[in-house]
Amino acid sequence: MTTQQLTQQIQNKKSFLCIGLDVDMTKIPQHLIALEDPIFEFNKAIIDATHDLCVAYKPNTAFYEAHGIKGWQSLQKTIEYINENHPEIFTIADAKRGDIGNTSSMYAKAFLEDLNFDSVTVAPYMGKDSVEPFLAFENKHAILLALTSNEGAFDFQTKVSEGTELYKRVIETSKTWKNSEKNLMYVVGATKAEYFTEIRQLLPDSFLLVPGVGAQGGSLQEVCKYGMSPNIGLLINSSRGIIYASNGADFAQKARAEATSIQQEMKQILDAQ
Amino acid sequence: MTTQQLTQQIQNKKSFLCIGLDVDMTKIPQHLIALEDPIFEFNKAIIDATHDLCVAYKPNTAFYEAHGIKGWQSLQKTIEYINENHPEIFTIADAKRGDIGNTSSMYAKAFLEDLNFDSVTVAPYMGKDSVEPFLAFENKHAILLALTSNEGAFDFQTKVSEGTELYKRVIETSKTWKNSEKNLMYVVGATKAEYFTEIRQLLPDSFLLVPGVGAQGGSLQEVCKYGMSPNIGLLINSSRGIIYASNGADFAQKARAEATSIQQEMKQILDAQ
Repeated sequence: MTTQQLTQQIQNKKSFLCIGLDVDMTKIPQHLIALEDPIFEFNKAIIDATHDLCVAYKPNTAFYEAHGIKGWQSLQKTIEYINENHPEIFTIADAKRGDIGNTSSMYAKAFLEDLNFDSVTVAPYMGKDSVEPFLAFENKHAILLALTSNEGAFDFQTKVSEGTELYKRVIETSKTWKNSEKNLMYVVGATKAEYFTEIRQLLPDSFLLVPGVGAQGGSLQEVCKYGMSPNIGLLINSSRGIIYASNGADFAQKARAEATSIQQEMKQILDAQ
Repeated sequence: MTTQQLTQQIQNKKSFLCIGLDVDMTKIPQHLIALEDPIFEFNKAIIDATHDLCVAYKPNTAFYEAHGIKGWQSLQKTIEYINENHPEIFTIADAKRGDIGNTSSMYAKAFLEDLNFDSVTVAPYMGKDSVEPFLAFENKHAILLALTSNEGAFDFQTKVSEGTELYKRVIETSKTWKNSEKNLMYVVGATKAEYFTEIRQLLPDSFLLVPGVGAQGGSLQEVCKYGMSPNIGLLINSSRGIIYASNGADFAQKARAEATSIQQEMKQILDAQ
């Protein structure tokens, strides 16, 4: 998917919501546990109930790897279900991979080609040759960790070297990498809305994947005020707040209600533009 | 496994060799391809031929994920085979994971508990709460990326902030994390032997996993001269140089010959201590 198609989808649905499919077996409704593939059944129900309200789904691979081979089967069935039934949806493998060049190429092929995700999140520590393999696929995207929403973000990401915070250096350096203009997006945590102004100076048009709105405390209004670009350029992620809105038989219905509430707020923001 | 047990194994075998099980289907002998699980069969033959010459095996997870569910089966069979037949061997899941706390916990459980690896490689970009979950398992280890052996290492890792290169800040900061003294090791690339002196000032006793000797150009003698600690403290990795020494029917025999050559050089170094 191109970023233009993503922006078009946002305008059509009046939503820039990404739903994180982080399925924790201890939190899903009891009646699903007895099924052959509870994780997939849970995802399928969430997708059926929310696909018109969001523009992206983001399974975090840790939640699937935690179940070994069965977990990978659930991940594969989930991405196939989305691609077959909702091909307009932007899919993100939240895998935070990154390794030397030939190894990153294998991860890139696994997620972008074999599993056929539209994008994969990537860690920047190993530099250019660890990220460029993820940028080599046409109409596919790497989403680079820039400023994350966790406490540990302040350990290294915000440290200043030669006048520049590390996360800004990551952004500036990454702009010189091959295919970055078309295929590179960034993770920017919403718990720091004040950072968005400076980031937008560095990245006027890039898409930013923003975790940490809602449960983790970030404000949607604040993020949009400072972070929205002319092509919208934002994907706001919510995971737990939506998918665990209820752990009863009505979980999908309650997830839809939560997603609707966020989508309505997004619609207002888009209409006011 | 404790680091004391690892040092003991090194003394017993007169070797601190780690063999990287990075199985590339395009490079393995043709006669294996027809088998039901060529990756496992390849690993099994390599392990049978080299287990007395090395102290660690390190499968890189990318090479397994590249084959989806079948790849995970091969990885699982490989670690089970090592743990059952050679429990003295230190096992490393070269996965370079790292995410927010609860997500890192799931990766840690998957690799250290379910798959039962002794250790897993971890990326530092997201800081303390992304790494500490990997340090919470008794007699298990996180191996933190400090200075990697690829070109991209110079993009961020060697940049100086407040008088300190990022990789040194990573090391210094990580020493304050819970259980780091017992359970934290580091990746330090061998292409920069001159860095080992300073790293040993920061980490007098820690184990360093060193890629980049041989094929990538580092010198074993140089690394040992500057990098060896009183408890040895080094695991030198070789992957391609050993496992692809031949792509004929004699591949395991040739892998043994390569591993023997490195082990003999290591024996000389240890005897000279």
